[in-house]
Amino acid sequence: MGIEYDGSRYSGWQTQHHARSVQQTLEQAIASVADHALRVHCAGRTDSGVHGLGQVVHFDSAASRSERAWVLGTNANLPDDVAVRWATPVAPDFHARFSATGRHYRYLILCQPTRSALWRDRAVWTHRTLQAAPMRQAAAALVGRHDFSSFRALACQAKSPVRTIRYLHIEQRGAFFELRVGADGFLHHMVRNLAGVLMAIGRGDAPVSWTSELLALRDRRRGGVTAPPQGLYLAGVDYPQRFALPVPGDADPLSVL
Amino acid sequence: MGIEYDGSRYSGWQTQHHARSVQQTLEQAIASVADHALRVHCAGRTDSGVHGLGQVVHFDSAASRSERAWVLGTNANLPDDVAVRWATPVAPDFHARFSATGRHYRYLILCQPTRSALWRDRAVWTHRTLQAAPMRQAAAALVGRHDFSSFRALACQAKSPVRTIRYLHIEQRGAFFELRVGADGFLHHMVRNLAGVLMAIGRGDAPVSWTSELLALRDRRRGGVTAPPQGLYLAGVDYPQRFALPVPGDADPLSVL
Repeated sequence: MGIEYDGSRYSGWQTQHHARSVQQTLEQAIASVADHALRVHCAGRTDSGVHGLGQVVHFDSAASRSERAWVLGTNANLPDDVAVRWATPVAPDFHARFSATGRHYRYLILCQPTRSALWRDRAVWTHRTLQAAPMRQAAAALVGRHDFSSFRALACQAKSPVRTIRYLHIEQRGAFFELRVGADGFLHHMVRNLAGVLMAIGRGDAPVSWTSELLALRDRRRGGVTAPPQGLYLAGVDYPQRFALPVPGDADPLSVL
Repeated sequence: MGIEYDGSRYSGWQTQHHARSVQQTLEQAIASVADHALRVHCAGRTDSGVHGLGQVVHFDSAASRSERAWVLGTNANLPDDVAVRWATPVAPDFHARFSATGRHYRYLILCQPTRSALWRDRAVWTHRTLQAAPMRQAAAALVGRHDFSSFRALACQAKSPVRTIRYLHIEQRGAFFELRVGADGFLHHMVRNLAGVLMAIGRGDAPVSWTSELLALRDRRRGGVTAPPQGLYLAGVDYPQRFALPVPGDADPLSVL
């Protein structure tokens, strides 16, 4: 299934004891269509406040339903801040997380003198002016295969800190800056740490060379501030073609940006 | 003051006995800066669920504060879904409603097979396909000075049903359709009624000629469905140049659309 959600009112993707998670909310809605309890597995676990545009999940069910019934039935049982975009049966060896070959994130920044009411939970606001040119220069140094230890959360449990960033674009439209980044995978807090460093460089608080220096240091304690969660969107996930997953095109709510 | 708000959690602009209004919320926040109770007057009263991007208000106060203090102080006392964009002293004869010479609205439509989680309160969703060309043809008939009786709410209290629409554009970007309309003024529910009729024409449920037929009929009971409030944004208000109000440019949250 392809899933979209507004992460504002959730503790994050993962089920926890004290707060409502996207995972639990989705499992309950799908279970009411499947007529049995089930567990969903996602491509990328998002933190509290982070949004899903193209999250992908899989689950096992013996229930026989049409794709349309899975989509409409689940949506009818979901709260309005979570939505199923598509559903399709997959091969038994498909795994939403382990089959993924690439992930795409976006990070949205609103630069204006005063805070925004409409974008309060959908973008990070800064009253400081950002310069796109130094941000783009600094971003170029991050593209490719690197040890991203300086950009991972201290609590990150990934075995290897090496990832390959395939692209990292910085787009400016009106008062908005958008970071678009794709990689084979991301470490914990990696996109928000990239965003925090690039914003500091865009403000002129750090030199363009800071990204390469941080890569060389391989030390999270020397890194920048983790940018807030509300600007982050899991935009999409890549899988091998043989799984033939649908790719919703301009249905993407941020395609207008 | 220029005001932005997310209308989702409000009963509308106007103070009512049973529910929280944007007006009341704003009056309380400004009062805490002014140190006295006050009444705000707005350019356009919006219904429940309708958003403000460029709402303009005025109020009378003997308190002496800098523009910056009015903006930051009021924002600090407002909930996060209402924000002051700017503040400036005006001539005694200025009135946010009666001095206005033009108003601008936008109506946002999301066309895709399934509902959207992120745009649930910010756009109207339709699973039906819309064709822009007939909508644009039908919109052209509405531009100019007309009797808009077929497009006003039955409860509308305006003395005259005659208004001048200066422009009515229909823009398509990805899965989004946006109606942009400017006029000397609007009748109650007029933009939502225009949107309802244009959507029916875009779906092919009504002919292009329907807009001219409705203008000629001057009968609301023959009109179309009132489109839902969550797609509507009060985008801006015009005043005579002598009032020298600031015009925030790309700070507009929908400028990215």
